[in-house]
Amino acid sequence: MSFNLKQADAVKISHAVRSGEVSAQEICTQTLDKINQQNPKLNCFTTILSEQAIAQAKTVDKAIAQGQDPGPLTGVPFAVKNLFDIAGIPTLAGAKINQENPPATEYSTAIKRLKQAGAILIGALNMDEYAYGFVTENYHYGATPNPHDITRISGGSSGGSAASVAAGLVPFTLGSDTNGSIRVPASLCGVFGLKPTYGRLSRAGVALFSSSLDHIGPFGKSVRDIATIYDILQGEDERDPVCTKRAPSLSLPQLDKGIEGVKIGVLEGYFAEAWEPEILEAVTKVANALNATQRFTIPEASRAKAAAYIITACEGSNLHLSNLRSRSQDFDPATRDRFLAGALIPATWYNQAQRFRRWYQQQVREIFQKVDILLAPTTPCVAPKIGQQTLKVGGEEILVRPNLGLYTQPLSFIGLPVLSVPVTGSGLPLGVQIIAAPHTEALILRVAKVLEAEGIIKVTDLP
Amino acid sequence: MSFNLKQADAVKISHAVRSGEVSAQEICTQTLDKINQQNPKLNCFTTILSEQAIAQAKTVDKAIAQGQDPGPLTGVPFAVKNLFDIAGIPTLAGAKINQENPPATEYSTAIKRLKQAGAILIGALNMDEYAYGFVTENYHYGATPNPHDITRISGGSSGGSAASVAAGLVPFTLGSDTNGSIRVPASLCGVFGLKPTYGRLSRAGVALFSSSLDHIGPFGKSVRDIATIYDILQGEDERDPVCTKRAPSLSLPQLDKGIEGVKIGVLEGYFAEAWEPEILEAVTKVANALNATQRFTIPEASRAKAAAYIITACEGSNLHLSNLRSRSQDFDPATRDRFLAGALIPATWYNQAQRFRRWYQQQVREIFQKVDILLAPTTPCVAPKIGQQTLKVGGEEILVRPNLGLYTQPLSFIGLPVLSVPVTGSGLPLGVQIIAAPHTEALILRVAKVLEAEGIIKVTDLP
Repeated sequence: MSFNLKQADAVKISHAVRSGEVSAQEICTQTLDKINQQNPKLNCFTTILSEQAIAQAKTVDKAIAQGQDPGPLTGVPFAVKNLFDIAGIPTLAGAKINQENPPATEYSTAIKRLKQAGAILIGALNMDEYAYGFVTENYHYGATPNPHDITRISGGSSGGSAASVAAGLVPFTLGSDTNGSIRVPASLCGVFGLKPTYGRLSRAGVALFSSSLDHIGPFGKSVRDIATIYDILQGEDERDPVCTKRAPSLSLPQLDKGIEGVKIGVLEGYFAEAWEPEILEAVTKVANALNATQRFTIPEASRAKAAAYIITACEGSNLHLSNLRSRSQDFDPATRDRFLAGALIPATWYNQAQRFRRWYQQQVREIFQKVDILLAPTTPCVAPKIGQQTLKVGGEEILVRPNLGLYTQPLSFIGLPVLSVPVTGSGLPLGVQIIAAPHTEALILRVAKVLEAEGIIKVTDLP
Repeated sequence: MSFNLKQADAVKISHAVRSGEVSAQEICTQTLDKINQQNPKLNCFTTILSEQAIAQAKTVDKAIAQGQDPGPLTGVPFAVKNLFDIAGIPTLAGAKINQENPPATEYSTAIKRLKQAGAILIGALNMDEYAYGFVTENYHYGATPNPHDITRISGGSSGGSAASVAAGLVPFTLGSDTNGSIRVPASLCGVFGLKPTYGRLSRAGVALFSSSLDHIGPFGKSVRDIATIYDILQGEDERDPVCTKRAPSLSLPQLDKGIEGVKIGVLEGYFAEAWEPEILEAVTKVANALNATQRFTIPEASRAKAAAYIITACEGSNLHLSNLRSRSQDFDPATRDRFLAGALIPATWYNQAQRFRRWYQQQVREIFQKVDILLAPTTPCVAPKIGQQTLKVGGEEILVRPNLGLYTQPLSFIGLPVLSVPVTGSGLPLGVQIIAAPHTEALILRVAKVLEAEGIIKVTDLP
């Protein structure tokens, strides 16, 4: 077959299928073959929907043969973190307990919208149990190794979503991000990962973890893919009371408007403490390309991380309280202990964290009066080894599990939109966060487009 | 002096002052004399602002002499629960600890608006410490006895606000209501008390108790007074982020539109369990006058009361945590124990209560698709004795302190507007709640106007 699926992003595949260069079914078969061949090693997929995918691909081909245009993602295979509802199968959310759940009766809104745009759902992807983790070393379903070095983790909790794109199994996927669960694995796997503004994308039909912090978003191989998918997903949804505001539609040419006059700064203070040399290199590379010389400080970012932890633990444990009481032995041990601790936190801590959150949000709002875009590293390190318990940051030994979200957590805490972009370099992948004020995803994508055009960012090549 | 202040409501006083029948200063002096004479017995006022009030009255008289119209409350004396900020004095909120606070630098928004409408601030009124109670038996500042029987309580936590109107010391006052703190004392003292929709009236400059449940509102002697004061107070306030929606202005003739076509029902189930004969009599009297024959049930109202308790205890204890830790001996013993207990509640209970709240709100929303106005008793009994620990309801002995809010708490829990109206009868005062869907205060006032015109409700005569 002549079409090179490995190099193609979603937009390219869609063009090829719509122009008749290749059929949706051929794309789909080639994709399934690769998954079946590589998944035993990469452990990205927990469910592969071969028959359903082929059937959908045939429908797409038929529509094209009849002169219809199925949409901007025609024939493009994709997969979702296994906390998105897929009609007909139980939604695992990385848990053994959820195997007993009844099959979902309806697709999540996000999947519905992608399918309506012509995309082909291929399967569901591995994650940390109930999204509570940054490592995707799932006790029940195994670890998802990093495609760049299978002795290392993919990051989490959307590890399968990042690794499957990095490995070229599917051109794009969906994940969720509460404290960094899209951005951390995107950074460690060397792909793009967008966590939009809180409330921007519908979470209907997605197993929640911590409602006041949960976001969904796409992983992809190019800025135009991220923009296309985001645009298809965005918009109000009566099934999700939090998702009420629709942004103006993005068109791809809009992203090429450039960034003249856009004020770009780099976060210092908390976000610049103890950088390892490779982090400094990545951030500097992006900052230099954007002439971002000004430095900004977000006050009390460390407290924001702490407050996000408290809120996450409290809201998360509340959702699982009944199972924690009656069958705690069925949880992933790493997750169980965190949930149990969360169930014991006094409400006054939770309320204090929420009150601090409003104060902190106001501080950050004021910073965005002075600057449009802020830059920060996504993770404090490249991918740690599977099973690794600690890592050294600035000479200090810290725990891996809670600290991979060091730089992501204080941003999602107040729902800011952030794109983690893969910075080109010689070693293992590393991401930089492009951060903006709420509801300005389009600006983030324009900045990323400039960096991509200059070759500063692109999906990290597999070794 | 010819003007009979005792019988006059605020609208009448304002007319008299504006027409020159009586001066604001005369009204003010007469009011202060009566307060100075009766307050030692009634213990309503914790602060009397004699000089300030006289000075303001003189300013009003001067404006009138110059042909100006100071506003719809020209020369009308009023007082506020001592949790409203009064510039120049510390805001006590019923607490001994707060005596050490610096003086407030600014008036609360509510006071500002009333003063702008010509009203004269006379002083601050007794309450339960930090608004946590239904009895106004304040450990530091004493109990506020009921003007109808000084061996009985006035109810709380806005006890001073209700009693001072009932005793004819001032024609209207302000209070606050978290779980019933306006409606309970209004019922026990035989006056009108309005708790508007959550977020309707600005709480800026008011010491909060439990932010997601706190409301402010007026006590008064007539429906037109309540309507006038409500209308002056309502409207967005940039000092209070919760207060964002302005209702159309009310005009008094509007209230006389009658209630043809208005669907009125009576709450049964939880709200009709174990009625004592006098409660049955009061509700029946109002229901019959309105031809309200249909019965409605709010599901899980008992759970709503429990959830309101949890949220109150958690949010309340969070606000006072630092003082609870360092100087718990300075709290009112009754309040301290509740706050300490609240500080120990796990966050998962709080989150569960908030989740239940959204479900419950939806259930009640559906009921208001079928009916416009609901009726329920305000309190399960007439005023208990000062010091009384238990009361008998339906043959069962229950605690006084938590149960005076039995019928108020499940309504404020979801921010419904409620007017407690004093029902005419032979014994001690008793109120009935007129309840409506959010943001329909005007309809409640129209219904009350009909009842008032028919003589079914009016401020209970002093013995």
